[in-house]
Amino acid sequence: MIRYALELEYDGTPFVGWQRQPSGLSVQGVVEAALEIATGQSCLLQGAGRTDAGVHARAMAAHVDLAGDAVPSALRLREMLNALVRPHPIAVLSVREVAADWHARFSCIARHYRYRILNRRAGPALERNQVWWRQGQLDVEAMQAAANRLLGHHDFSSFRSSECQAKNPNRTLDALTLSRRGEEVWIDAAARSFLHHQVRIMVGTLVEVGRGRWTVLQVEEALAARNRAAAGPTAPPTGLYFTRAVYPEA
Amino acid sequence: MIRYALELEYDGTPFVGWQRQPSGLSVQGVVEAALEIATGQSCLLQGAGRTDAGVHARAMAAHVDLAGDAVPSALRLREMLNALVRPHPIAVLSVREVAADWHARFSCIARHYRYRILNRRAGPALERNQVWWRQGQLDVEAMQAAANRLLGHHDFSSFRSSECQAKNPNRTLDALTLSRRGEEVWIDAAARSFLHHQVRIMVGTLVEVGRGRWTVLQVEEALAARNRAAAGPTAPPTGLYFTRAVYPEA
Repeated sequence: MIRYALELEYDGTPFVGWQRQPSGLSVQGVVEAALEIATGQSCLLQGAGRTDAGVHARAMAAHVDLAGDAVPSALRLREMLNALVRPHPIAVLSVREVAADWHARFSCIARHYRYRILNRRAGPALERNQVWWRQGQLDVEAMQAAANRLLGHHDFSSFRSSECQAKNPNRTLDALTLSRRGEEVWIDAAARSFLHHQVRIMVGTLVEVGRGRWTVLQVEEALAARNRAAAGPTAPPTGLYFTRAVYPEA
Repeated sequence: MIRYALELEYDGTPFVGWQRQPSGLSVQGVVEAALEIATGQSCLLQGAGRTDAGVHARAMAAHVDLAGDAVPSALRLREMLNALVRPHPIAVLSVREVAADWHARFSCIARHYRYRILNRRAGPALERNQVWWRQGQLDVEAMQAAANRLLGHHDFSSFRSSECQAKNPNRTLDALTLSRRGEEVWIDAAARSFLHHQVRIMVGTLVEVGRGRWTVLQVEEALAARNRAAAGPTAPPTGLYFTRAVYPEA
């Protein structure tokens, strides 16, 4: 068997999410079907993260094991997969051989997400389904002050979905950085791993601060409460992008 | 009558273009219909430019005259229009009162366009219909050298559609600037006005240079030929954005 690492871009809009489900179109399912056609083998695609329905990826990492005999070269495989995944909005950015112990999920030492908020009066015409539209002017400085209180190692029970299956609610948040880009506000988050809905609940909570409804202290208290009900609403999936999976140097 | 200036963003994908046509959905037609519902008046919307089918706008300027008695405030009109144009991908960014002699088309002293090329092996997943996908690595320096030969006042007959109705083929090209932005190549063009398809034919020709198929000298010769057949192909509308209409300070 040879292990291949894939890098994928996708528009999450038409998908039930990354993960194969009993019904509905998933990113994993579409790419696995393309792999099976390309190689004639039954394939299991492992991703670095499992994005929800509507969440996008600029560069999701994944791996698959293929029996070496009949497998095309990595470059040829990329071309075949890009042809086979059409018309679904998935692009296979790269395919490369990796060591047999390289694991897209378990070897990953950092995950990066970006959240895009369109912050203006008029809704999006060109970026439909690609941003969260918030009309009122957001106070980005206050949001950054609140974000800073979430940095570091904490029990993030308040910032995870009630359906989150992780046994341990402790995570280390390495970055949560806000920036204004024209009419958009970007929130860049990085951690070794995140809890289910963690980025979206952090964003939803920070937006309450940006609107002047919550204080920085209230965010700190929400974190300390270790209770989902104490944090703000879950931001919609449309604005969220998985941007990067980081691995140790080979 | 009061004259209102509108600023519009739109995704050109579903439209037959800016201009109302006997059949098909146009940006002008959708906004005029919304204006008529909002004001109860028959309306004629004048745009700074007439973008083709599939061409987008970040900030198209337009104006409309409304009888003053029953017209809502400019701010209220913007909100009403944004509600009424749904679900079409049009956003009314601003509405303001202007002088009666302000004309979206004739007062405009400069028009800016941006053309986005996605220049990588894999096709677009997140920017479908919003870029032109070119696989082979483009030589942006050579493209800029060729672009520089097009700057200034010229007879642009080689760079206009055979259906162009302008009487005078002379135009002054003020800027044609290339830049690489990650995996994209942007081409920013500015002029008082452009001929029909001028930006798209210039882009299509520059891409031939970027691919190494044309020399800079050949572009110069194509310009001198004053014949559409002498220039390169017309780039597709998907990558083109009307970005700005400039007016003299009030």
